[in-house]
Amino acid sequence: MIKVGIIGATGYVGAELLRILLNHKDVTVSAISSVSFEGEEISSIYKTFIDKTNLKCETIEDVLEKSEIIFTALPHGLSEDIASKCIDHGKICIDMGADFRLSKEENYKLWYEKDFSHPAIHKESVYGLPEFNRTKIKKAKLIANPGCYPTSIELGLMPLLKNSLIETKGIICDSKSGATGAGRGLTLSSHFAELNENFAPYKVGGHRHTPEIEETLGFMASDNVTVTFTPHLLPISRGIISTIYCTPKNQVDLEKIHDLYIEAYRDEPFVSVLPLGEVACTKNVRYSNYCHISLHLNHRKDQIIVVSAIDNMVKGAAGQAVQNMNILLGLDEKEGLNFISPSF
Amino acid sequence: MIKVGIIGATGYVGAELLRILLNHKDVTVSAISSVSFEGEEISSIYKTFIDKTNLKCETIEDVLEKSEIIFTALPHGLSEDIASKCIDHGKICIDMGADFRLSKEENYKLWYEKDFSHPAIHKESVYGLPEFNRTKIKKAKLIANPGCYPTSIELGLMPLLKNSLIETKGIICDSKSGATGAGRGLTLSSHFAELNENFAPYKVGGHRHTPEIEETLGFMASDNVTVTFTPHLLPISRGIISTIYCTPKNQVDLEKIHDLYIEAYRDEPFVSVLPLGEVACTKNVRYSNYCHISLHLNHRKDQIIVVSAIDNMVKGAAGQAVQNMNILLGLDEKEGLNFISPSF
Amino acid sequence: MIKVGIIGATGYVGAELLRILLNHKDVTVSAISSVSFEGEEISSIYKTFIDKTNLKCETIEDVLEKSEIIFTALPHGLSEDIASKCIDHGKICIDMGADFRLSKEENYKLWYEKDFSHPAIHKESVYGLPEFNRTKIKKAKLIANPGCYPTSIELGLMPLLKNSLIETKGIICDSKSGATGAGRGLTLSSHFAELNENFAPYKVGGHRHTPEIEETLGFMASDNVTVTFTPHLLPISRGIISTIYCTPKNQVDLEKIHDLYIEAYRDEPFVSVLPLGEVACTKNVRYSNYCHISLHLNHRKDQIIVVSAIDNMVKGAAGQAVQNMNILLGLDEKEGLNFISPSF
Amino acid sequence: MIKVGIIGATGYVGAELLRILLNHKDVTVSAISSVSFEGEEISSIYKTFIDKTNLKCETIEDVLEKSEIIFTALPHGLSEDIASKCIDHGKICIDMGADFRLSKEENYKLWYEKDFSHPAIHKESVYGLPEFNRTKIKKAKLIANPGCYPTSIELGLMPLLKNSLIETKGIICDSKSGATGAGRGLTLSSHFAELNENFAPYKVGGHRHTPEIEETLGFMASDNVTVTFTPHLLPISRGIISTIYCTPKNQVDLEKIHDLYIEAYRDEPFVSVLPLGEVACTKNVRYSNYCHISLHLNHRKDQIIVVSAIDNMVKGAAGQAVQNMNILLGLDEKEGLNFISPSF
Repeated sequence: MIKVGIIGATGYVGAELLRILLNHKDVTVSAISSVSFEGEEISSIYKTFIDKTNLKCETIEDVLEKSEIIFTALPHGLSEDIASKCIDHGKICIDMGADFRLSKEENYKLWYEKDFSHPAIHKESVYGLPEFNRTKIKKAKLIANPGCYPTSIELGLMPLLKNSLIETKGIICDSKSGATGAGRGLTLSSHFAELNENFAPYKVGGHRHTPEIEETLGFMASDNVTVTFTPHLLPISRGIISTIYCTPKNQVDLEKIHDLYIEAYRDEPFVSVLPLGEVACTKNVRYSNYCHISLHLNHRKDQIIVVSAIDNMVKGAAGQAVQNMNILLGLDEKEGLNFISPSF
Repeated sequence: MIKVGIIGATGYVGAELLRILLNHKDVTVSAISSVSFEGEEISSIYKTFIDKTNLKCETIEDVLEKSEIIFTALPHGLSEDIASKCIDHGKICIDMGADFRLSKEENYKLWYEKDFSHPAIHKESVYGLPEFNRTKIKKAKLIANPGCYPTSIELGLMPLLKNSLIETKGIICDSKSGATGAGRGLTLSSHFAELNENFAPYKVGGHRHTPEIEETLGFMASDNVTVTFTPHLLPISRGIISTIYCTPKNQVDLEKIHDLYIEAYRDEPFVSVLPLGEVACTKNVRYSNYCHISLHLNHRKDQIIVVSAIDNMVKGAAGQAVQNMNILLGLDEKEGLNFISPSF
Repeated sequence: MIKVGIIGATGYVGAELLRILLNHKDVTVSAISSVSFEGEEISSIYKTFIDKTNLKCETIEDVLEKSEIIFTALPHGLSEDIASKCIDHGKICIDMGADFRLSKEENYKLWYEKDFSHPAIHKESVYGLPEFNRTKIKKAKLIANPGCYPTSIELGLMPLLKNSLIETKGIICDSKSGATGAGRGLTLSSHFAELNENFAPYKVGGHRHTPEIEETLGFMASDNVTVTFTPHLLPISRGIISTIYCTPKNQVDLEKIHDLYIEAYRDEPFVSVLPLGEVACTKNVRYSNYCHISLHLNHRKDQIIVVSAIDNMVKGAAGQAVQNMNILLGLDEKEGLNFISPSF
Repeated sequence: MIKVGIIGATGYVGAELLRILLNHKDVTVSAISSVSFEGEEISSIYKTFIDKTNLKCETIEDVLEKSEIIFTALPHGLSEDIASKCIDHGKICIDMGADFRLSKEENYKLWYEKDFSHPAIHKESVYGLPEFNRTKIKKAKLIANPGCYPTSIELGLMPLLKNSLIETKGIICDSKSGATGAGRGLTLSSHFAELNENFAPYKVGGHRHTPEIEETLGFMASDNVTVTFTPHLLPISRGIISTIYCTPKNQVDLEKIHDLYIEAYRDEPFVSVLPLGEVACTKNVRYSNYCHISLHLNHRKDQIIVVSAIDNMVKGAAGQAVQNMNILLGLDEKEGLNFISPSF
């Protein structure tokens, strides 16, 4: 059994990861840490763990010492130092935060108002989108697990961009996410009586996932890509829908594009391209590691509309992290991730 | 007291209209009709009317005979004949369906697969968006009450289009609506266990509100306007958010655009332009006749993003119908519509 | 116009009260206060008030000075002093908190762990349940507006208790409330991702509304009444259902009991006794001041089951406070409270 | 691999069972049937099965022929005949409907208005509550999988009744269930816009689970047990909470009762007795096969309040059926059922 640890286990991403790892047959969770709950049993914080695990929250040092693979689920700015220690001690770090997602330091400075604190190790980091980067992931020591919104958008657009079928400037990404994406921290906007039966966009024109999306789409297109990205907060717990509007370079044959997507994702264990006529929805991927993609045209046939659905906590965070771990350890990529979404 | 009647009172739009009219101080509801529930008390169908009214569902003829103003809340294709009778008998008809919303018969044919059955009376119909057509509404005999999605989009874009500030081709309208918009008819997609905690677009590229939106925006712009319109179904009961992406013709000064909106809607009783920095949401207009509009730029400042929020059943249907009635009767435009939205 | 003021206007109860009073034709809101938001416009805190009022949060003293009637919406322990000042200055105080609901100081001590700070004025306070105490309310200077759960339970049981038809010991009150009942303060239990799709009881066997329920039911029965009261938190915004189980003293004829309820509430503007066979639900009273009551028997006919539904924020708080104000001012009891619940 | 089949695979219970069985390592789903969807792929009905299975809906006969173990998920009255055929052909039948839950035919007649059509095989049926009947289940050929409400109530009361600690007459069971319990069939009461934000009891005093509850509790108590059972419909998808009020025979020591429960369920893989002070909720058992039980006293210490939480579709239906299968096949009782509930 491989020993894995979680730093930041009491936030939603950390707890979701623990939930998945406890049923993973090839690893054992050796230690978890939490600054806020040090010394407490995880089952006293999340009652779902009662009778499933006796793990207690320890210190970051405990996790580093007891684990071969370290997952970090921390606010941005806190993972670089831990990743650096992992590399020094020959351990693998999978960071589920934002610290290593941007390859250009100027982008990080611009959007996070902060320099890289350990610039050297950024070169070692691999962007952990398996469908795009599997080969590199296999050999990685440091993985930047993608953001939830970027995952949905990047998987939705990859075949179009790799094949240069759309204009790379001005792609509209209208994304909607369930409330777990905002985490466990208390805020008025996620107070039940405020969010329930409400719907609205937020951070219009200024969300920090924008540079990650533009960078990665750019790598896919081998060109500069610009997007307008608008996140919205859904009054549901789980799921992201990205509705993506892009302009085809040439006249469009939707069936051909559909064939292209089917082909592109044929061997992918976690991406399903829906039959033409179907529409992707959050319900059919909830709690699972799947991405559902559906393809559409507007009535004038001058805009391709891609709809991409994931669970923000699984394929958008903890599940994708486990998928990355499975890849780099050479395990069955689906181990621990075979859960079929309950569609009701 | 002016006598008003409702044809199709047991659908959601008809029932919502009745709810509003029962508290309107200048009119009395003289008769209501329902094909499915003829002879039954409305309070046995909607229990909220217990102890509030003894109205029974009668026939269409009863309503036509007993009322001076007739509201029709019917599936498309069924209102033309009734409207024709109203005009013959000197009565006013406010149609809340789709029969008179499109001015061009070829559009109606294309999207509804049906000819106008009474082409002559279409010339008499006035599109009932008060903020755009108030002068004509005052003298109208036949009003086409706008669709819910079109209301949100048209109010959101009117100042930009009237002032020729944006490109008129390829406007992206990404709209999201609560479930009451789909009506009271039972379908799997609105079965609770299917829709709850779910989110998805529907009729991508082919929703029938598209030609209404394009026609009306065209009148506002005095130019051809084309849109890509994508509706989504929210797992909430009430509310529409339209997130609208448009390309400015010239460099943008958001403050100036904001001033323009403030000015354009200064005297409008039901449109509030939010302060810059605020984001419109459904919660603050629920159950009210208000439209909230917020204005934004993307991070490259090459896209204006307008967010427009209404209650689909009120400003998007029954409330706007009452507003139209108030205008054409010369009453206080806000009578019966002063309800302040409960924001929690 | 009568001048009214609200102390504690930025909590949910205070804001709901303001929302109702702004549309009340006989009063004007002269001042509102908030300790947390002093100096801020209420429309910047609750956006629903944009374009409806320019009221700013002032100090408690401002409200006391500018108003003839003072509503207090404060945590327990803070209203006694304000009520005392009101009485000294000949002003009327309607307290929506818990300070005056219990007549016996020992109960207050036991459940709130606190003495009365102004014992003398408690004798002047009237328990503001209009259906039970209307005569006293007409002459009151100080009103203790009932708690939300107690209102639903007391209205549900009053006819049975006044007519001595049930055992007074061991009544089971299983109550369920929407999340607004917990207020605007942030807690993990009302964090959206925690409460959404969840359901559970809370404070089992120890909720502070218990002594209020037992005292008032006792006054109705002219006897000692004991209850087991269990509140539950519903993942909805508004509404309380109390399912009440009581043992009839004699053999039961449900039709006779139904007649008794119809008779008891015949002249009550805000209580509807549903026809036998119907079941009260929260939907048909949401946002309204109505209480819906339905009556049932178990299959062995040895338990009467009363189902009582109210909106916790309206009949359970702010609406009932306005009803009390209307009564004591000799106004139409329904003024400001005529809103018909949207049942979808 | 053992071959299992599902008759009635397109209802919610059948589809949930398929979802669980597809990840069960010791069985293979050989065939599924559906009268309504014969010939269609299950993945075209439930999109969650896209890329997970190619199973098509076949006939009942196909399932009977191809399977060693047959699960029936049918409306009452339709399983007896199938069970009879299973027995004739030496196959095992696990019925998830109501046909075999009642041991007394007069109860079945009274509540289902129907005779047993195959009275002889009822003697062979075993009530499939593993915690009560594990020994019999091991040798069973025909299993009556318990109802959802009864499962929650019976597990909640078993230790108290087996030890004769409470009065057996007049136990109050106030139960609340999520909407999936009502199935996939379209009804107005489960139309999204009707149920969303609503809450109410239904079938007060007359729900068909009552005799099953009374019979089974009676077996546990070795005495006649009578209950008042009131189901309520929650506007959530999954979960049941039963709040159970019972009168202790002697003075109560809650710690001792808690110890008794801990002891009673010590070896049960799917029942967790929460620490005193905790309250069971639906969230922590959603999508899992667990039952959470919490124990409480009212403030006068004369009523024990048991709170029992399950997922109505899993421990209340399909999961318990798999648990029963595991037991009678001698497999690991937890196989296929190790999913840990996502608590957010």
